[in-house]
Amino acid sequence: MRFQSVLDTLPIYEAGKPIELVVREYGISPDKVIKLASNENPFGVSSKVKEKVARSLDKMPLYPDDTYRELKEALSQAYGVQPSNVIQGNGSDQIFDFATRSVLGPGDCVLQNGKTFSMYSIYSEQCGAKVVSTDSIEHDLNQLLDLYKRYRPKLIFICTPCNPIGDALKKNDVYSFLDKISNETLVVIDGAYMDFGRTRDRETDIPPAEVISKYPNVVYTGTFSKVHGLGGMRIGYGIASEEIIRAFYKLRPPFNVSQLSQLAAIEALKDTDFVDSYLRSNLDELPNYESFADSKGLPYFKSYTNFITIRLEDAKLSSRELFETLLREGIILRNLKSYGLNAIRITIGRSDQNRILLDRLKALL
Amino acid sequence: MRFQSVLDTLPIYEAGKPIELVVREYGISPDKVIKLASNENPFGVSSKVKEKVARSLDKMPLYPDDTYRELKEALSQAYGVQPSNVIQGNGSDQIFDFATRSVLGPGDCVLQNGKTFSMYSIYSEQCGAKVVSTDSIEHDLNQLLDLYKRYRPKLIFICTPCNPIGDALKKNDVYSFLDKISNETLVVIDGAYMDFGRTRDRETDIPPAEVISKYPNVVYTGTFSKVHGLGGMRIGYGIASEEIIRAFYKLRPPFNVSQLSQLAAIEALKDTDFVDSYLRSNLDELPNYESFADSKGLPYFKSYTNFITIRLEDAKLSSRELFETLLREGIILRNLKSYGLNAIRITIGRSDQNRILLDRLKALL
Repeated sequence: MRFQSVLDTLPIYEAGKPIELVVREYGISPDKVIKLASNENPFGVSSKVKEKVARSLDKMPLYPDDTYRELKEALSQAYGVQPSNVIQGNGSDQIFDFATRSVLGPGDCVLQNGKTFSMYSIYSEQCGAKVVSTDSIEHDLNQLLDLYKRYRPKLIFICTPCNPIGDALKKNDVYSFLDKISNETLVVIDGAYMDFGRTRDRETDIPPAEVISKYPNVVYTGTFSKVHGLGGMRIGYGIASEEIIRAFYKLRPPFNVSQLSQLAAIEALKDTDFVDSYLRSNLDELPNYESFADSKGLPYFKSYTNFITIRLEDAKLSSRELFETLLREGIILRNLKSYGLNAIRITIGRSDQNRILLDRLKALL
Repeated sequence: MRFQSVLDTLPIYEAGKPIELVVREYGISPDKVIKLASNENPFGVSSKVKEKVARSLDKMPLYPDDTYRELKEALSQAYGVQPSNVIQGNGSDQIFDFATRSVLGPGDCVLQNGKTFSMYSIYSEQCGAKVVSTDSIEHDLNQLLDLYKRYRPKLIFICTPCNPIGDALKKNDVYSFLDKISNETLVVIDGAYMDFGRTRDRETDIPPAEVISKYPNVVYTGTFSKVHGLGGMRIGYGIASEEIIRAFYKLRPPFNVSQLSQLAAIEALKDTDFVDSYLRSNLDELPNYESFADSKGLPYFKSYTNFITIRLEDAKLSSRELFETLLREGIILRNLKSYGLNAIRITIGRSDQNRILLDRLKALL
């Protein structure tokens, strides 16, 4: 069988290790596992969302309303845009897929930061496009602009705050950058961690309604996987001009978000107390990791997210050794080796989880 | 913004009308609506599945195990294949997407029956491929073979039993056809309705393990949306040679099936009593629609599915008129006008639903 030649060299995304793996490989009971690997919400999900889903199980057999009207209305109200500016995705991941497939053909160029979410390049390469990255670890808008002028990409990805590093760009810097980009270049601003960034520094906040009204070539993406605690439900969204949304809709498979996922998301948007309480806890707990790293002289990236990335070049253990040691104990972190970094990414957990992990890190590093 | 030119002419899938629409447009209370439009399971979902999901709500925040190991093991045991022969999809729809994107490039040819599931051509056209269809309504393998020889397609779709017509091919006829097809041509056998077909005529049953061992170029697709009553949960699968599955995996987005969906599916596979009882009811109820159509002299297609398609060329109402009249009363059927047929597709419901609908059809037609 001859498959499309782009498949020959496509990389495959490596996900954080699931709890199931630790259970089956190391025989650790699931309730003993501490998973701080995938930037999930350590407080779980709002009890109101759980109640809503529990009351809605009779909807499982029914295809969702394929207009997703109620979800789009809830999102448009939450972000001050029109429902026609919104498209729902099976995770914000699916919005990246729509973005790449709507503008990229073989040989086209995509621009991104050196270290960033790896699905951007995977989706781009599926279209036969060539991905150009800065050589910086944190976002470098000057270098991004130089590369833009040189390569004239059809698509630019900006992840702010950035996964897997944790840095955030200031809104005004992003706007100055966007001012210099042609309206014919699609720009994805991935705001998966925007709520965390905003609570640490308001200047990093990029409101979707504002950015799409100033820049008709921007699509802002968001997710319910982080502050709303719905990572397992696969639901995200894109906010953009009607022109972009219409194009993405042509690539959207029918019923792309499950019935229970959309109900959970609508309910999650209402429970702002749950979100605020998590954001406060995250901001309270983050300094404990910073103090730890400082005490050991380990460099780390200032984080505007719910994780912290600590570099281990000068540590007693490499990121692989630390990852594997803790994995055997039932603590799952994310080794950033596949991103070319000798660094470990730690999701900020609940205080009880952080205490256990910090004790182990103090002993091991 | 310049989008990829294939987007200019792409059709958009038209889904069956959701209950929500009838509620908001006609003010009918949701529990009074009879939806027999989308071939969902009229008995809902197994109570064991509901209990399993209700017990698993704490998993909503966690990304699924991206290996989907438990789900693939359950499917491989159910169908007598290896886990490496299985890929899960966000509905079997996503498997069609993997199939088209793995083999099709601009200008390539895809072959399908004249009337068939409309997403095949939508996904194919997204790849810039040209879709050639037979001029038959029911599957015509002789014509399909003639077109195969003339156009040498890279991909063939066979939907058996076929949506939206209801006809089924006999296994031996399919195998004789496949014997004449090059191993370099990918063939999708969409078995979404296979369980219904098998209960009506065993000769229409195409076991996935058998077909993929005889034909390494075949991918068999199945869904949890029909007999298992999980249409809203978006979960389907492909079964094929390891070579095909590996290629599809390169196009699979991470976490493509939600946490609760995979748990529901695993549980649904266990409750064979629920499935068997639905299959018996479906076979008991189908003749009531056939007798009705016979009594009115309305032609219909012999159905091997959970729906019946009745032609209305000689009826008092066109399919549009009948559809709209019943919609206002809170009964949702599927008008096949968008398929170029003056015909109505009726999902076989529970006996109480069928009685109400048949009374109205007797009065109206």
